Parts: sequence; structure tokens; C-alpha cells
Amino acid sequence: MTKQVAIVLAGCGVFDGSEIYETTLTLLRLDQLGIGYRCFAPDVAQHHVINHLDQTPVEGETRNVLQESARLARGDISPITELDSDEFDAVIVPGGFGVAKNLSDFAMQSDSMQVLESVKEALAGFKEDAKPIGLMCIAPVMVPRLLGDGIAVTIGHDPGVAGAISAMGGLHRSCGVEEIVVDHEHRVVTTPAYMLATRISEAATGIFKLVDRIDEMMG
Amino acid sequence: MTKQVAIVLAGCGVFDGSEIYETTLTLLRLDQLGIGYRCFAPDVAQHHVINHLDQTPVEGETRNVLQESARLARGDISPITELDSDEFDAVIVPGGFGVAKNLSDFAMQSDSMQVLESVKEALAGFKEDAKPIGLMCIAPVMVPRLLGDGIAVTIGHDPGVAGAISAMGGLHRSCGVEEIVVDHEHRVVTTPAYMLATRISEAATGIFKLVDRIDEMMG
Repeated sequence: MTKQVAIVLAGCGVFDGSEIYETTLTLLRLDQLGIGYRCFAPDVAQHHVINHLDQTPVEGETRNVLQESARLARGDISPITELDSDEFDAVIVPGGFGVAKNLSDFAMQSDSMQVLESVKEALAGFKEDAKPIGLMCIAPVMVPRLLGDGIAVTIGHDPGVAGAISAMGGLHRSCGVEEIVVDHEHRVVTTPAYMLATRISEAATGIFKLVDRIDEMMG
Repeated sequence: MTKQVAIVLAGCGVFDGSEIYETTLTLLRLDQLGIGYRCFAPDVAQHHVINHLDQTPVEGETRNVLQESARLARGDISPITELDSDEFDAVIVPGGFGVAKNLSDFAMQSDSMQVLESVKEALAGFKEDAKPIGLMCIAPVMVPRLLGDGIAVTIGHDPGVAGAISAMGGLHRSCGVEEIVVDHEHRVVTTPAYMLATRISEAATGIFKLVDRIDEMMG
């Protein structure tokens, strides 16, 4: 039986959705390892739409997180409310500002952030069954709210974000772009990806290590 | 001096823009080889917007090809009118329906298709200077209009599309998803990618071969 990994998306594009390269590189590595995957996203409005040319919000335009995430999944995606952790061996959350704007409100609230209830519910089963959980880029900021206190993660070495993770009860460990941080007890793997990457091949090295480790941990 | 490749984009998403995985895999391979790149797209309205969940057109919504392509380039992109072939050693055009809807009207007109004038002008210098040109997925249908008659390309083995290429004066050669077709005389390299791929790793194999061959041809 092929191992199966759930992927949680937050839109399509670094400034208002999921980071495109991080997501693609995750799927590439899973497929290269013969691991199946399925994408999920919340069926909610995006916090806003960013013109990726000049990074300004587009006034009066709304987009739906599930519909935009479907671009990243070539249409093959389901609402996150349908994510049943019993059907998967692990879950991975790529980064991008969508994680901090659509899955949570970290971009607006910092350490008083909340995570979307549907995302918390979807992840709860993985935590209960000690299935491996991978998060990259900014996504590890959700770990204290999603999975509880005292879990070691990395977002690279941004002092503000690291401080917010700490203030919420998490443990932040500095990490290079081509490395991963593994919390063995809590089965959580994180990598900085585009929190630090200046080249796509750097991001790929860290993300491939994360996926390889998740693969090992699935047994 | 690092080799430089221009990438021509057509939006962001397989059904109305550039294919996301094809573009990302192209950039990954270029970067892994130490080759620089820059993305370009026409500053025009998309033909339409497709809801990638159900593949239906979204009524009343318009998007701009350059702005949406900027998502795929993490904001680092220029209008195609600024593409000066003297600054590049090669050019690559990923696929996706955007090529057949935004860069050309192949999706609507088949073998009476036209290619956007700005795209023709941008590619003309590469042809004149015999610099390598790579195209993948559906993008090779533009070759007869862009580069002239008698150039061998592949889009896999779809009889309708192959027939249209032939009707326009091109030569179509059948090809597997993990292979490339090289027209040595005209310096054109093509691969089927998501015209045939059922897995991202298959697309990656063909695309990596295309980029590797372009690298060799740049000398």
C-alpha cells in the first residue's frame, strides 16, 4: 500500500496564498519517492488579493482560497473539511503569506494570532495519532496554536517571528535554508525555505530534506 | 559570465495561464545548473479566468497576464516588450492553456491561430542569432507561426494538435513524456510535459532533459 500525504494549501502566490515553488517542490519530491498525495484548502475568502507585480492590495477584488489553491493542484483538491487523517500517513503545510493571512491571522496579529478552526480540526487527528507533520517557511508559526506548547520548530532566523513563536509557547531553533529542524518527540519537521532562500535550488535542498525525513518517519 | 535564459509566461494556472509545475521545474533545473533566468509576460488581459475547481469560466472577472505571471515569478518579472534577446543566451516557453489562449489563440482557432505580436517580436532575435529555443507542453504549436516552416517539434502524440502543427507548416514528431525532440538545424527543443504527464516526476524528467539540452546548446 502506497504511503499517502495530505497537503494543506492557502491560495496560490507568495504574497497572498501558498508559495508556489515550495508547494511544487514538495509534490515533486513526494512523487519521486513514490508517495501519494492529496491537496486540501479551506473554502473561505482570501484575506485580500495582492498584485504580485508591485505587492499592493487590489481594491475591490475577492478570491476564494480553495479555488485559487486548485490552480496549484491542477484542479485536484478538496475542501479541508473533508481531510480525514485516518486516510493519510502524514501532513505537510507549505509556506507563503497565505498561511499567515488565510489559514491564520499571524500577519495581522503576531503572537495573539488565531488559526482557522477547520485547519485545527484537520490537523488534530495527525497529532493524536503521532503521524509526522511537516511545515515550511512561515507555516511553523502556527505550531503552538495547532499542536501545543514546547515544540521545536524553525522559520530560519528572523528575530521577530522567532520571538512570536516563543511568546506563544513554542521553541524556536535557528536553522540554515538547506537544513531542517526535527522535533522527534512531537514528530514535527520544519525548514526555512523562502523565509531565507535567495535561489530556488536552496529552497529545494531544504524541502527535499524535509520530505525525505517525513518519509523515514512514516516508516 | 553566467549564462542567462529568458522565460516567457502566460498567466498562472494550467487552465488559463502558464502551467505552474512546468514553470517551477524549469526554473529549478536552470538554477541547479547555475544558469541565471528572468521572467517576461505580455501586459494584456487574460482571454478568460477559469475556476480551477470545476474548470468553468468565471463570468465578469478579468485578470492581467503580467500580474498573474508575477505570482509564478515571486514578483520578479518584466513586460515582454522589454525582452532584449541580446541580453540572453536562450529562451524557454513553458506550457499551460495560457499559451493557447493568451500568447496565441490556438485554443479557439486551431490551425488558423495567430500569435501575439509582442511574443513574435520578443522571439525574433533568438531565431536570428540561432540561440536555442525551448518549448514544452502545448507551446510548440506556436513554432510554425513564430519561427517558420519545417521545424520539428513534439506535443506528445495528440493527433488533432499534431495535425494542426502539420497544417501550419510544422513537422510533428511523436515523443514520450520523459523524452525531448531536438531540431538541431533550427536549434529548437521541445518536450510533451503535461500534454502527457500523469505524474509530476514524469514531467520533471522531460523538462530537466530539455533544460540540460538547452544548456549544452548554449555552449
